[in-house]
Amino acid sequence: MEKMLEEVLEENRALAKQGKVASYIPALSKANPNHLGICIIDENKNIYKQGDFDVKFTMQSISKVIALMLALMDNGEKVFEKVGREGTEEPFNTLYKLDLPHIKKPVNPMINAGAIATTAQIKGDKIQRILELIRKITENPSINYNKGVYLSEKATGEKNKAIAHLMRAREIMDEEPDEVLDCYFKQCSIEVTACDLAKIAIFISNGCKGLESYGEIDRKTLSRNLLAIMTIGGMYNISGQYAAEAGVPSKSGVGGGIMAAVPGRMGIGVFSPPLDENGNSIAGYEIMKSLSQRLNLSIF
Amino acid sequence: MEKMLEEVLEENRALAKQGKVASYIPALSKANPNHLGICIIDENKNIYKQGDFDVKFTMQSISKVIALMLALMDNGEKVFEKVGREGTEEPFNTLYKLDLPHIKKPVNPMINAGAIATTAQIKGDKIQRILELIRKITENPSINYNKGVYLSEKATGEKNKAIAHLMRAREIMDEEPDEVLDCYFKQCSIEVTACDLAKIAIFISNGCKGLESYGEIDRKTLSRNLLAIMTIGGMYNISGQYAAEAGVPSKSGVGGGIMAAVPGRMGIGVFSPPLDENGNSIAGYEIMKSLSQRLNLSIF
Amino acid sequence: MEKMLEEVLEENRALAKQGKVASYIPALSKANPNHLGICIIDENKNIYKQGDFDVKFTMQSISKVIALMLALMDNGEKVFEKVGREGTEEPFNTLYKLDLPHIKKPVNPMINAGAIATTAQIKGDKIQRILELIRKITENPSINYNKGVYLSEKATGEKNKAIAHLMRAREIMDEEPDEVLDCYFKQCSIEVTACDLAKIAIFISNGCKGLESYGEIDRKTLSRNLLAIMTIGGMYNISGQYAAEAGVPSKSGVGGGIMAAVPGRMGIGVFSPPLDENGNSIAGYEIMKSLSQRLNLSIF
Amino acid sequence: MEKMLEEVLEENRALAKQGKVASYIPALSKANPNHLGICIIDENKNIYKQGDFDVKFTMQSISKVIALMLALMDNGEKVFEKVGREGTEEPFNTLYKLDLPHIKKPVNPMINAGAIATTAQIKGDKIQRILELIRKITENPSINYNKGVYLSEKATGEKNKAIAHLMRAREIMDEEPDEVLDCYFKQCSIEVTACDLAKIAIFISNGCKGLESYGEIDRKTLSRNLLAIMTIGGMYNISGQYAAEAGVPSKSGVGGGIMAAVPGRMGIGVFSPPLDENGNSIAGYEIMKSLSQRLNLSIF
Repeated sequence: MEKMLEEVLEENRALAKQGKVASYIPALSKANPNHLGICIIDENKNIYKQGDFDVKFTMQSISKVIALMLALMDNGEKVFEKVGREGTEEPFNTLYKLDLPHIKKPVNPMINAGAIATTAQIKGDKIQRILELIRKITENPSINYNKGVYLSEKATGEKNKAIAHLMRAREIMDEEPDEVLDCYFKQCSIEVTACDLAKIAIFISNGCKGLESYGEIDRKTLSRNLLAIMTIGGMYNISGQYAAEAGVPSKSGVGGGIMAAVPGRMGIGVFSPPLDENGNSIAGYEIMKSLSQRLNLSIF
Repeated sequence: MEKMLEEVLEENRALAKQGKVASYIPALSKANPNHLGICIIDENKNIYKQGDFDVKFTMQSISKVIALMLALMDNGEKVFEKVGREGTEEPFNTLYKLDLPHIKKPVNPMINAGAIATTAQIKGDKIQRILELIRKITENPSINYNKGVYLSEKATGEKNKAIAHLMRAREIMDEEPDEVLDCYFKQCSIEVTACDLAKIAIFISNGCKGLESYGEIDRKTLSRNLLAIMTIGGMYNISGQYAAEAGVPSKSGVGGGIMAAVPGRMGIGVFSPPLDENGNSIAGYEIMKSLSQRLNLSIF
Repeated sequence: MEKMLEEVLEENRALAKQGKVASYIPALSKANPNHLGICIIDENKNIYKQGDFDVKFTMQSISKVIALMLALMDNGEKVFEKVGREGTEEPFNTLYKLDLPHIKKPVNPMINAGAIATTAQIKGDKIQRILELIRKITENPSINYNKGVYLSEKATGEKNKAIAHLMRAREIMDEEPDEVLDCYFKQCSIEVTACDLAKIAIFISNGCKGLESYGEIDRKTLSRNLLAIMTIGGMYNISGQYAAEAGVPSKSGVGGGIMAAVPGRMGIGVFSPPLDENGNSIAGYEIMKSLSQRLNLSIF
Repeated sequence: MEKMLEEVLEENRALAKQGKVASYIPALSKANPNHLGICIIDENKNIYKQGDFDVKFTMQSISKVIALMLALMDNGEKVFEKVGREGTEEPFNTLYKLDLPHIKKPVNPMINAGAIATTAQIKGDKIQRILELIRKITENPSINYNKGVYLSEKATGEKNKAIAHLMRAREIMDEEPDEVLDCYFKQCSIEVTACDLAKIAIFISNGCKGLESYGEIDRKTLSRNLLAIMTIGGMYNISGQYAAEAGVPSKSGVGGGIMAAVPGRMGIGVFSPPLDENGNSIAGYEIMKSLSQRLNLSIF
């Protein structure tokens, strides 16, 4: 297995050169484009890892899965009154439909608008609860957000501010836009390793087993919502293409991470910062396709 | 098994009364709202059926899966240069995005625009090849389209005409709009039974095994594309919700049919004409949720 | 006056070289880019003309003003239940808004969609009535449409077909799309000279004086609607800019004509085929600005 | 004249009961719906007034004309690189097009987005300069903004905040959104009377005569831009209809004011708080139609 992982990494290492490290916020552009790491955990808790599996990077959009988890535990499927669960061909930061009268909510929790509307539904101290849930699932109490990245996101996130105020204006969101955004910018800045992602992924794959309480939702419904929504929207506007090609419920982030959950079998974390034009790790995408073929991971 | 199917039908029979038989073309409004039937075929070719499993109805949107199959066999994944494979929150007959400069193709082959762009890519005598493929897969040489329904669709399908001409104007489609539409209206009018649908579904579930030739695509890639695209778009604009709730790659049609393909395990055909507001069989949707739970069919 | 006109033409002759003759239908691309002509008629019926004032060209969008005139005479201001009278930043062939639920009608009678919805409201033999009205106003019984251009428009007008079918689908238009389009393509192909345009313009400028009957509208309301709508939409998506710069209610056509009506004072026809990127005669636009300044024509 | 004004007011007084006082910000909903006033100033500085001509109300959108004046004086017609000058069928607070890639700027300075993009282009202490210009034109040094209304706008203007942040994200606006908004909320809260409006209107009607300096624009171009843009967009999304019906370049505000500038002839201020569904004073609109007919004011 580890031999195979090494092979897969080497085969796709060159590909990273064709992508570009995220630059939309200054702090992200400092990422090392040569980092490449992977970690796999199977249903028996065996761990396989290669390359830069212990290098920290920010979760960015991958944090949307955690926020959705908490929002579902707090509200059950009522969450979907404020955010849909359909796919879209529009980019992650699309906003225009939220101003069209016939559209009543953001299309899914994996685009920024939907993620902000999801975070808004987390009760109590939102960022604290997000951090604690990740720490618990990863068994890694050192998980925290990177203050520099957070401040950089906060200083430059004009599009996200527009989205939050628009959703408030349309009463999709009842909370104060600035407060919700503050949590959103922090959750995007949470630092993890490929192994942390693999741990979250195997947790989801295994039906979210292991928490003491699930609040307003049962753990099977929770897990199925996460897996289905990652499938239809986890890879931004090429999620459907990725579903056909790799067939593993996954979520990517512009920090270069991909978190992939093979239902009932496996959790995978991949890390390589250079991105394709849609915002997915360019090497990560191909590594997942390759793994899917070699290990027969596709759900289809 | 048959006992269970009977139970499931009876539990959901009342639900049909809350829906409405399709009326957007005159010929469809004559359907009997009380019809309710189901057929299941497992990977060992065992057949289980209940209710009106042998009543004929028109495929409507379910034919989009067959058209996609042929377009993929004729062109390989080049098909996706002319039609996307992402989900959408817009209704099946949405058109406006095709007039926005940043949108280059219809979002997926399961909405009307995408289906027309898919049918356009079938080579040779399109409708003849569609009919022959269905006859072969269902081993039912009597399969044909209903001329009355076809003429009714043709006479009233103004929105589809608008879509076809717009795609021609934008060079998404190189073929004559009227010729492609003629095939599209015919394919929608093909009559099948719940058992015919189950046969097509088990064929797709089983990796499309059994054809002599697959043209430009290998059968595994063909099957995965069909299953992934049915998942992200097969139930119109509630496909993601259905993925979370039932978790079976499916395609519905306004004739009241649902064709559901459980990867590697099972093909299912359900038939009940009254529809919900999104165009899916209202009882069919719940029957699939119920079956998914009882037989643990969810891919998630 | 004629000296001044000669000057204005010569000053702007070179400008035509920066534009492009319309090529969206084959028949239009054969126009001679060097043609340049003007005709002015004042309220005392004095006629001033220079250059190619007697060369025939097709009206194209200028015919939309005549169609609006007849629709208003047939229906009064009820016309505006099916077509708006606001400006727009979208190009002449825009369609997408007509598929948005909150939009109930095309934005104005000067874009293609609005023009088709206007022509649909003309009673009786539409094209015959359009021809007769133009012949009457211009006192030119030889006015007719160019059959070659008409057939070329009909063969290639995919976008217009999409628009007509969409408006039928949304019940903006009750008439058969193909029949309305047939008139629309013919009216666009009507041939006139710069002097014919000047005659129509002075008719509108003078409060539409001179017809025996105005049907459902009084002639002052008719004239004001025409002048106001030409102002907000007559020069496509730069109508407002033109209003600030030239300040004369005008309508342009991709055949290279501009018809300008100075309220109470003057009718002007300009002809020069090369177009700017918005579809307006590039030299024509500047000639109008120059004339407005020299003769103090701006209504503002 | 004053007799006639009294008549016009009385004829339309009942109409106000069919409208609704603006309630989108708390402070506006306290307006007295029975207030009804008018003031006319002709080119010889004769003043005619009736009713509540001296009651103060907030300018709201009417301030957009002043902001445009200053932006044009500061930048000349370069202003239009950041904001268009076309009409629109969309409501005053529309935003969605600014997220469509093919749209590069807000459609005109009379909708909120365009007004914010205009205010952003005023140099120096924006609100101070706006106040001073109004004081100068009205010869009323007591003009100021209402602090209560300003704070109310600021506290609740979520849609405007979304618009400003979106324009910053798309680089339509280079300034800090919060700073521009602060001026925008203040300018909307400036208090005037019908007579103040009439004074501004006659200033514009008379070619903006009377300032010492016009900065980057000549006064005729300034005046024509203001009049043309008021015509195509001054009455929100029924500006074209109003142009056909009243034919006077005008700007309305949700405070109940209408400022109407008859080119070369007259300035008019009307005040009646209850609004129609588009945000125009319902009695004000009819009073303007009536005046236009009686005094033959239409520019068309």
